[in-house]
Amino acid sequence: MSQQVHAVRSENAIDPDDITIAYIGGGSRQWAPNLIRDLAQSDLHGQVRLYDEYYESAQLNAEFGNWVHDEADVEPSADWSYEAVEDLETALSGADIVILSTQYDPAETFVHDLDIPKEYGIYGAVAATIGPGGIFRAMRTVPLYRKFAAAIREHCPDAWVFNYTNPVHFVTRALYDEYPDINALGLCHEVLGTRHRLARYAREELDMDAEREDISVNVKGINHFTWIDEARCKGVDLWPVLEDLVESDHAHQEFSWEDLEDESVFVDNWQVTWELFRRFDVLPAAGDRHLVEYATSFIQNGQEGLNRWGVKRTGSDYRSKHWTPAESDQTTDVEAWLDGEKEFELTESHEVFVDILRALVGRDTYVTNINLPNVGQVSDLQDGAVVETNAVVRNNEVKPTAAGGFPRPVRSLIRGHVDTIETVIEASRDGDVDAAFQGFLIDQQIRTLQTEEARELFAELVAAEEEYLQDWALEDSDVLAEADAYPAN
Amino acid sequence: MSQQVHAVRSENAIDPDDITIAYIGGGSRQWAPNLIRDLAQSDLHGQVRLYDEYYESAQLNAEFGNWVHDEADVEPSADWSYEAVEDLETALSGADIVILSTQYDPAETFVHDLDIPKEYGIYGAVAATIGPGGIFRAMRTVPLYRKFAAAIREHCPDAWVFNYTNPVHFVTRALYDEYPDINALGLCHEVLGTRHRLARYAREELDMDAEREDISVNVKGINHFTWIDEARCKGVDLWPVLEDLVESDHAHQEFSWEDLEDESVFVDNWQVTWELFRRFDVLPAAGDRHLVEYATSFIQNGQEGLNRWGVKRTGSDYRSKHWTPAESDQTTDVEAWLDGEKEFELTESHEVFVDILRALVGRDTYVTNINLPNVGQVSDLQDGAVVETNAVVRNNEVKPTAAGGFPRPVRSLIRGHVDTIETVIEASRDGDVDAAFQGFLIDQQIRTLQTEEARELFAELVAAEEEYLQDWALEDSDVLAEADAYPAN
Amino acid sequence: MSQQVHAVRSENAIDPDDITIAYIGGGSRQWAPNLIRDLAQSDLHGQVRLYDEYYESAQLNAEFGNWVHDEADVEPSADWSYEAVEDLETALSGADIVILSTQYDPAETFVHDLDIPKEYGIYGAVAATIGPGGIFRAMRTVPLYRKFAAAIREHCPDAWVFNYTNPVHFVTRALYDEYPDINALGLCHEVLGTRHRLARYAREELDMDAEREDISVNVKGINHFTWIDEARCKGVDLWPVLEDLVESDHAHQEFSWEDLEDESVFVDNWQVTWELFRRFDVLPAAGDRHLVEYATSFIQNGQEGLNRWGVKRTGSDYRSKHWTPAESDQTTDVEAWLDGEKEFELTESHEVFVDILRALVGRDTYVTNINLPNVGQVSDLQDGAVVETNAVVRNNEVKPTAAGGFPRPVRSLIRGHVDTIETVIEASRDGDVDAAFQGFLIDQQIRTLQTEEARELFAELVAAEEEYLQDWALEDSDVLAEADAYPAN
Amino acid sequence: MSQQVHAVRSENAIDPDDITIAYIGGGSRQWAPNLIRDLAQSDLHGQVRLYDEYYESAQLNAEFGNWVHDEADVEPSADWSYEAVEDLETALSGADIVILSTQYDPAETFVHDLDIPKEYGIYGAVAATIGPGGIFRAMRTVPLYRKFAAAIREHCPDAWVFNYTNPVHFVTRALYDEYPDINALGLCHEVLGTRHRLARYAREELDMDAEREDISVNVKGINHFTWIDEARCKGVDLWPVLEDLVESDHAHQEFSWEDLEDESVFVDNWQVTWELFRRFDVLPAAGDRHLVEYATSFIQNGQEGLNRWGVKRTGSDYRSKHWTPAESDQTTDVEAWLDGEKEFELTESHEVFVDILRALVGRDTYVTNINLPNVGQVSDLQDGAVVETNAVVRNNEVKPTAAGGFPRPVRSLIRGHVDTIETVIEASRDGDVDAAFQGFLIDQQIRTLQTEEARELFAELVAAEEEYLQDWALEDSDVLAEADAYPAN
Repeated sequence: MSQQVHAVRSENAIDPDDITIAYIGGGSRQWAPNLIRDLAQSDLHGQVRLYDEYYESAQLNAEFGNWVHDEADVEPSADWSYEAVEDLETALSGADIVILSTQYDPAETFVHDLDIPKEYGIYGAVAATIGPGGIFRAMRTVPLYRKFAAAIREHCPDAWVFNYTNPVHFVTRALYDEYPDINALGLCHEVLGTRHRLARYAREELDMDAEREDISVNVKGINHFTWIDEARCKGVDLWPVLEDLVESDHAHQEFSWEDLEDESVFVDNWQVTWELFRRFDVLPAAGDRHLVEYATSFIQNGQEGLNRWGVKRTGSDYRSKHWTPAESDQTTDVEAWLDGEKEFELTESHEVFVDILRALVGRDTYVTNINLPNVGQVSDLQDGAVVETNAVVRNNEVKPTAAGGFPRPVRSLIRGHVDTIETVIEASRDGDVDAAFQGFLIDQQIRTLQTEEARELFAELVAAEEEYLQDWALEDSDVLAEADAYPAN
Repeated sequence: MSQQVHAVRSENAIDPDDITIAYIGGGSRQWAPNLIRDLAQSDLHGQVRLYDEYYESAQLNAEFGNWVHDEADVEPSADWSYEAVEDLETALSGADIVILSTQYDPAETFVHDLDIPKEYGIYGAVAATIGPGGIFRAMRTVPLYRKFAAAIREHCPDAWVFNYTNPVHFVTRALYDEYPDINALGLCHEVLGTRHRLARYAREELDMDAEREDISVNVKGINHFTWIDEARCKGVDLWPVLEDLVESDHAHQEFSWEDLEDESVFVDNWQVTWELFRRFDVLPAAGDRHLVEYATSFIQNGQEGLNRWGVKRTGSDYRSKHWTPAESDQTTDVEAWLDGEKEFELTESHEVFVDILRALVGRDTYVTNINLPNVGQVSDLQDGAVVETNAVVRNNEVKPTAAGGFPRPVRSLIRGHVDTIETVIEASRDGDVDAAFQGFLIDQQIRTLQTEEARELFAELVAAEEEYLQDWALEDSDVLAEADAYPAN
Repeated sequence: MSQQVHAVRSENAIDPDDITIAYIGGGSRQWAPNLIRDLAQSDLHGQVRLYDEYYESAQLNAEFGNWVHDEADVEPSADWSYEAVEDLETALSGADIVILSTQYDPAETFVHDLDIPKEYGIYGAVAATIGPGGIFRAMRTVPLYRKFAAAIREHCPDAWVFNYTNPVHFVTRALYDEYPDINALGLCHEVLGTRHRLARYAREELDMDAEREDISVNVKGINHFTWIDEARCKGVDLWPVLEDLVESDHAHQEFSWEDLEDESVFVDNWQVTWELFRRFDVLPAAGDRHLVEYATSFIQNGQEGLNRWGVKRTGSDYRSKHWTPAESDQTTDVEAWLDGEKEFELTESHEVFVDILRALVGRDTYVTNINLPNVGQVSDLQDGAVVETNAVVRNNEVKPTAAGGFPRPVRSLIRGHVDTIETVIEASRDGDVDAAFQGFLIDQQIRTLQTEEARELFAELVAAEEEYLQDWALEDSDVLAEADAYPAN
Repeated sequence: MSQQVHAVRSENAIDPDDITIAYIGGGSRQWAPNLIRDLAQSDLHGQVRLYDEYYESAQLNAEFGNWVHDEADVEPSADWSYEAVEDLETALSGADIVILSTQYDPAETFVHDLDIPKEYGIYGAVAATIGPGGIFRAMRTVPLYRKFAAAIREHCPDAWVFNYTNPVHFVTRALYDEYPDINALGLCHEVLGTRHRLARYAREELDMDAEREDISVNVKGINHFTWIDEARCKGVDLWPVLEDLVESDHAHQEFSWEDLEDESVFVDNWQVTWELFRRFDVLPAAGDRHLVEYATSFIQNGQEGLNRWGVKRTGSDYRSKHWTPAESDQTTDVEAWLDGEKEFELTESHEVFVDILRALVGRDTYVTNINLPNVGQVSDLQDGAVVETNAVVRNNEVKPTAAGGFPRPVRSLIRGHVDTIETVIEASRDGDVDAAFQGFLIDQQIRTLQTEEARELFAELVAAEEEYLQDWALEDSDVLAEADAYPAN
């Protein structure tokens, strides 16, 4: 019926000349160097505390950050210092901004998320945010992020928290579930990618001079399953363009394994997007490889079926081969730059982190897509569920914009996933495995299994990732007790 | 936010000594003779007009009905006369009660509902009320029932309308969509069967003297996917009994084709019921063969998967071999009785029609499960959707009882089906085929197909049943125009 | 969005031959003797424990009850024994049924509810259930009934609890707020009175043979502000009768003090009822003297204004002159019967208690108006608010019937009162006086005062009834600290 | 349950160098000259069509506008031309922007809105937007604005429509009710005034350098009854400041007639604001003279009561003495400037019109309070009701920001007014006088009258303003037929 506003609210203004950022997962080899360069070119100043389970990686990034400002042959417009810290409390204490971006060792976890369901015929494309793999990633991650939320409440209750960790909808929801007054923003690149693509169509079809920033959309949904029902380029309506394109050959391409063999798993041919637009008259706004995990028709025919739509499955080898930040292939040339082996330049990433930060400290009014608990911005999903819409960022304030609702069939698909997410989040409060299994059972990928097969899949995943599921009351579970696949039985 | 009450309301009292019943589909060989005998043993009096596309069948039933009262060697407590009529208007004009129970020739329709989806791997158990077959049955039936509703508005606007035609949720919804002030009740035996089963458990487990009538339940959901969260026998709580049974061998039986080979397709081993109760803590209240069409996990593994749960698939030969009322095998011994070849007795059926009728005319207050538009009786399904709960029948009044809502995972499953139903009903207003296809696409059975396969299945079903789909704007459909399987292409 | 069903549920069946009733407030001089006689003429048997702050009164009733069965010159059809008990725990322990009917000394409380607001120009007719007097009665009563609820949870958690104590909406709500699984029914005579009146119209206008029991209505609202939008006598629609009557002289009478001088304060001339029906097209179903407290237009012109509509104000002397059960003038001839001074007969009251009780033990299916937490029976008031609608009583089960919603203007009036009630109930959890004052401020009677006057009225009432408000944190209140009228300042 | 998004959407981008503005009511003597000067100092260019019932006034403004650009001794940064047009169609045809700002002759209308209710004891402070006067203003204005909406649909369906006409909530709602795809914005100064005041407190209490533009608030409600639950100055939380101030003498001032005698009726002493903040913990955001019309406690004690809170009543002479634009005292020195009698300067008004316009054409992202149909921005008022919250204006797009809901007591007050507004709007569809009277009856000012007095007041207002109510079916009204005060009777 009604709901209280969630005031994303920080009591004090952030001083743009003295910002303290705590970066949890700050050993990252790709995103951290990007951040360092973006900050260096901004009009903001402060210090960054890098915290990572892999302290050496954090140290390297700190060294790099300070080198950019002190030694490199560039002229930063801003002044930032970097420090690697060894414990979470030190990182968080009094921080203005917290960045959350961590994951467990993929070789021990993600590989199972991909491989085990596949044995049961579930051929998810990325298995990262929904479906059996996504749910297990959530089951591993949610308890950890509850602890982060509790630490934030203790050490920097008013900080703005940027969560980049997947599954963004589960994880951001968990942060709010644990600490309802947290100022957390769930962030993701997918909608930016759609705007990027729409800019291309504006250039190609309307001969406009258009970049991502020129595209405005009315976006709504849950992360990785967002939808657009208005799109403009510099005020010009792009809907007629999309309606023409969907009828064209461009939107009727079929692919085979051979077409995709040499492509990255990130390849996005938009054929899933076009097909969903064709069927439902609203445009999905996430990469096709994510969409198929939510619009599960597309993963029903195994590899061939997926490839036909131009989507390439993430292999379990892909993510597991590299694990520690130092070994990751999502990296940059930090060592080469530091060693002078490669010329360093202050290039810009296309991340919006600095844009949001500038708006938070009052330098701008900025609108971008952000995952936040629903207080009405999506009118026909439940209150409190974490939804993705545009939000306005201003001086110490983030407010989602009212994006309305969905055509019934699309709403139906989304609500199903929200039900899974909410069921698992609720189960995670007490570590109730069997309640989580109910959310697992109604997942739209898993409904292709008989209930007993689902139970076995569930048990097998628990067994494989048990080390990371110690916050769940595994020993109290009737479901696990019934399962043949559970080693303890 | 709010909703107007739907007053199921008839302006005038019905005279229990002079009731006029219009029976549309009155040529039925089983249900009509049952009705005739039940009425004869009641304390109500009046006349019944039998209307059927097969006039001769209606005539035979009329002859039988009058014979019971005038010639048979029995002593009816009531006085009823029967007449076969040749047009709908005559049947309806001034009727107090309308019975709706018709179907199109199964050999031309139902057989396709079962066989064609099976070719696409959809192994529905009965294909009668949801899934591709159920949706097509709805697409054929809804336009006809809109015409019935319009005729009722014209000829007997205050009549109480008993709809027995499947899919009951679609059809009852269509009656109200066409004529919002209709006094229509959707009726079905499944919940009665569950109460019958619960009476057996009360006898066996509690040593109580118990019949179906002694069992009261709090039932809610949509027809064929109803759930119980309270059950009592003469006031004694049966929940502890159910919680014991679900742990016992009784609820852990596995079946094979051999076990079922000689069984009727109506066999109900309750193993689906127990498994759903085990997983979700509320008890389904419909035959297992219906449940599996809605809880679609159970139909994922073809015949073997279905049989394992004790369910036997309705073969397409089963219903198609007999068609006209005269040929139906759901028959009774009417000719034999009339010819004196078989002794006639006034046995009672277990139908509740006469119980409801007695309450409507003021002879009783009667509570039973009835499908009605939601005005709050189910608190977490949408207003207006046709839901099944208990209702109280009193003097010229039918009111559903407030049954509350569902545990989230069960609600999620039900809402998905409501979305399909509502989408198709809305599409049927203008005969919009492509809008109906959206409802088809999100059906939980059909989600196992890629969207193009779903399109081909849809088109193939349209092609096979085109004669019965003439109220749909087939020629305007983009979906059909795209489909290889559509002969016109 | 959704809500859990409240299962009004008792685990075990009640044995109709051995019912234990705990009667809290059992010293009553009118209602208890009625109950004793009604039970004696029933087909139920058992024992009644009478508990009252005035133990002697309970003893007298016990003596009378036993006398009826053992000594009086009548032949009860039932067998009941009575016992006065001295503590609440003994009364409740293992009870099947609890009757709650108590009040604080009116001379110390109710007199202030009536007199003090009047000084501020608030001329409520009974001041018993809403408005400043009703709110204070609630503030006194709610903490006590929270204790009763807690005691019931401890001593007879499955008992059926019949609450007759005013304000019924506040008090029943408090019982559920304290013990959400309580099986409490809020009961009131007003709707019965309306049905009684409608029976008269059926006799007079339709020449029908009609009694209260022949009238069925679709009733909904909150206690003392319920509305009817369907009414039938033996199935015949009474709406046309009401629409004629409202245009007639019968519904256009004006009254003066002289007309009412010799009338009881209970006189009900229905002129408020007719005026509200005329304006809003739905029929109020409570005595006019109660309606005017909720439809506050009618109390705006003092005594003359009230009398003009045929309503007589309850004087503060009326209720305060008699207080203990022994002194009450709502009495019967118990002593005279016991002494043989007056002939005793087993007359029937028109209470529905025994009707409900017979249905609860499985002897009948009974429909009557009952106040229960909203689980959907009123579709446009909030979940959980205690609303009054019909409910079906069967074997150990009470379910409200879905009654739909309201025309917007009527809904608006009702929601305002629900907001006051819910605000005060919520405030009562912690004894938060200032939060309760917010509910007081938005009350529709009190809105005629400036906020400071409202504060003074509030403080004056607190001061006068402080002894009965000890569960409220009076010392923490800013409102009281500001008030000139608060003696502590 | 759910709702479709209202896409405030214009198909084509507006060319910032060639904007066409249709100004309905363009003869205004104050607002038009302000607009002309603001536009002249902008970076936008185009033409303005001035339409007014008083064509001469429009002509004078056109002359002035062109003089500013062509002859005055100033250097506009922009290029605008002005034209007075004689019919609505010409004004609207192909317009990018429509400004709506008109009223009927106050001497014939507004004077009655103020004077007649006062005779009945209703002492509204401005009588302009709610209460009997506001409702009658709505009843006069809504039918006219339905015609404007229809003309916009025909002549410039994609135009952005700025409605400044009171009652803004009624009128903006009527525009959408008539033409649901209209791009209409309801605009008002009151929240700007509150931000202005908050800037003062930031300067005084926090020693900040603060202007209105530095204040951001989370605002929500209905126009003239909006509330703030977050306020910041350059990111610094102002709530602690407000909580201190409300306890200080500054927020405990009492006024008398003498204090106010020489003040303008626009005087705003914020004592009502403070009292409401004190009582309900959220801050009202409209002038006190408006607030008292909605929080009706404050108008209960006549002039003295109103003055005590520092509010001065608008006298009926105030607005009626001047009527045509030429005679209005809300004027500027246009003639003096044109005649060279007074030196002309390009001063800036503090209107936000040009700020919004610049954002609409893509020059900025701008956040300000705007009245729009609720699509979720206020989570606990009904969908479709026109509510006031912040909105983000960007390139051809206006989206409200999700502002959440209210504490229950405040929500209760607001909902009551929404019910009146919605009831009257619905009644206006068919000109149903008696349905409008239901909205009148439940108005919180009018509830102080008995229903018959309310009827007489209603009839008297109809009689006085009958000329302006010709779109209502006065002759079909039972209410008017009953009324003694209606001359036709």
